[in-house]
Amino acid sequence: MQRYKAIIEYCGTNYYGMQRQSNLPTIQGKIEQALSLFMNKQSFIDFCGRTDAGVHAKGQVIHFDLEQERREYNIMQGINFYLRNEEIAILNVEKVPSDFHARFSATSRTYIYKILNRRVHSPLLLNKVMHIVADLNINAMQEAANHLIGKKTDFSAFRSSECSAENPIRTIDSIKITKIHDEIDIEIRAKSFLHNMVRIIVGTLINVGKNKYKAGYINTILDSKNRTLSGQTAAACGLYFIKAEY
Amino acid sequence: MQRYKAIIEYCGTNYYGMQRQSNLPTIQGKIEQALSLFMNKQSFIDFCGRTDAGVHAKGQVIHFDLEQERREYNIMQGINFYLRNEEIAILNVEKVPSDFHARFSATSRTYIYKILNRRVHSPLLLNKVMHIVADLNINAMQEAANHLIGKKTDFSAFRSSECSAENPIRTIDSIKITKIHDEIDIEIRAKSFLHNMVRIIVGTLINVGKNKYKAGYINTILDSKNRTLSGQTAAACGLYFIKAEY
Repeated sequence: MQRYKAIIEYCGTNYYGMQRQSNLPTIQGKIEQALSLFMNKQSFIDFCGRTDAGVHAKGQVIHFDLEQERREYNIMQGINFYLRNEEIAILNVEKVPSDFHARFSATSRTYIYKILNRRVHSPLLLNKVMHIVADLNINAMQEAANHLIGKKTDFSAFRSSECSAENPIRTIDSIKITKIHDEIDIEIRAKSFLHNMVRIIVGTLINVGKNKYKAGYINTILDSKNRTLSGQTAAACGLYFIKAEY
Repeated sequence: MQRYKAIIEYCGTNYYGMQRQSNLPTIQGKIEQALSLFMNKQSFIDFCGRTDAGVHAKGQVIHFDLEQERREYNIMQGINFYLRNEEIAILNVEKVPSDFHARFSATSRTYIYKILNRRVHSPLLLNKVMHIVADLNINAMQEAANHLIGKKTDFSAFRSSECSAENPIRTIDSIKITKIHDEIDIEIRAKSFLHNMVRIIVGTLINVGKNKYKAGYINTILDSKNRTLSGQTAAACGLYFIKAEY
């Protein structure tokens, strides 16, 4: 038995998220189907980060075990052949030790949230960014973001009411907000996140950027542990799973 | 009568090019339909650059005349309302003198051709770039490109056999090739181009990048005035009309 790690890119628009669901097209489902066709044997994968419907990935990570060892390049090409009509592609395959786990071995996950900040939406970026007309104050957003990073924090106010994690404490390593022309990128890195945590943080930072409240108010929201004080869950289409580290 | 200039963005994938065609969806046709609905009167536009099916634009330019003067912002929003189900958007509208002409007044046109240069295609850039696996030699491509710029040149070898221009002489102002990670941009600027000229130049530069021939061979191709010596017409999906100057 040989374990393999693979890097995946996908456009999430036409899928019901990463996780396998019976009778619905999901990223995991399509990759398992392709891997099973390639290996001519029912096959399963594990993945690093659960992404919701509409969320994209440039560097999602999966692992799987093969009874027969194969060349990495051939596995990549083989799975991609069976994914040729999907908006999913395997970018790399490599052998890993049998104790490697795409989800549990990850030491960090990086997401980028993309905002198009201009008067008119972009046909070329349809379903690839969140469009916001109001001019966002990037400096205030970064100031608010800085309150969230570098320490163990209770993110109860920043998780979905459906989040099943027992422990709401997480540590965000970094949040970097950059603007090039009219495109704003919010890059967030942490060992792990709560359900919808990135999108709720982004929704809250957008409120700061619109001057709905001051940057420091994010501490009041944190302390409240109350989901109703934080911002809206930002649209799925702006979110990208960029990479994981191990 | 007031003349207006407008800047247009579109994803060309699902249209039969810029120019109006009876019974086929085109950019011009959809904009004229939207303008006519907005003005409640059959309306027509002129445009700067004819783009083929599948070619995109971030800054196509059009002009049109309105009998009733309207506020620029209201015209933009009004046309965009009727384009809401299309992959076309008006980014800006401004009043111009009645002798302004989107096509004839242009002093330069800038296109960018986008190449994704890596092993695997990109689901996130589907129909938005040309995918090339072979590692391209950017320096050789730029060297070849430099032979094409700065002087009046007979581009007979670099135009479609269907090109109807009487004069094959054009002057290219600049060709800049840049690579960021695995994305190569070829930016070409000239007062005007022959039919398919940008895409045939790109196809020829790709041959140089693949070491099919040396950079200097582009002079032999130019001198031959023979379309069969130049490269393939590069795929439409990589081409973007970026802007025009007046």
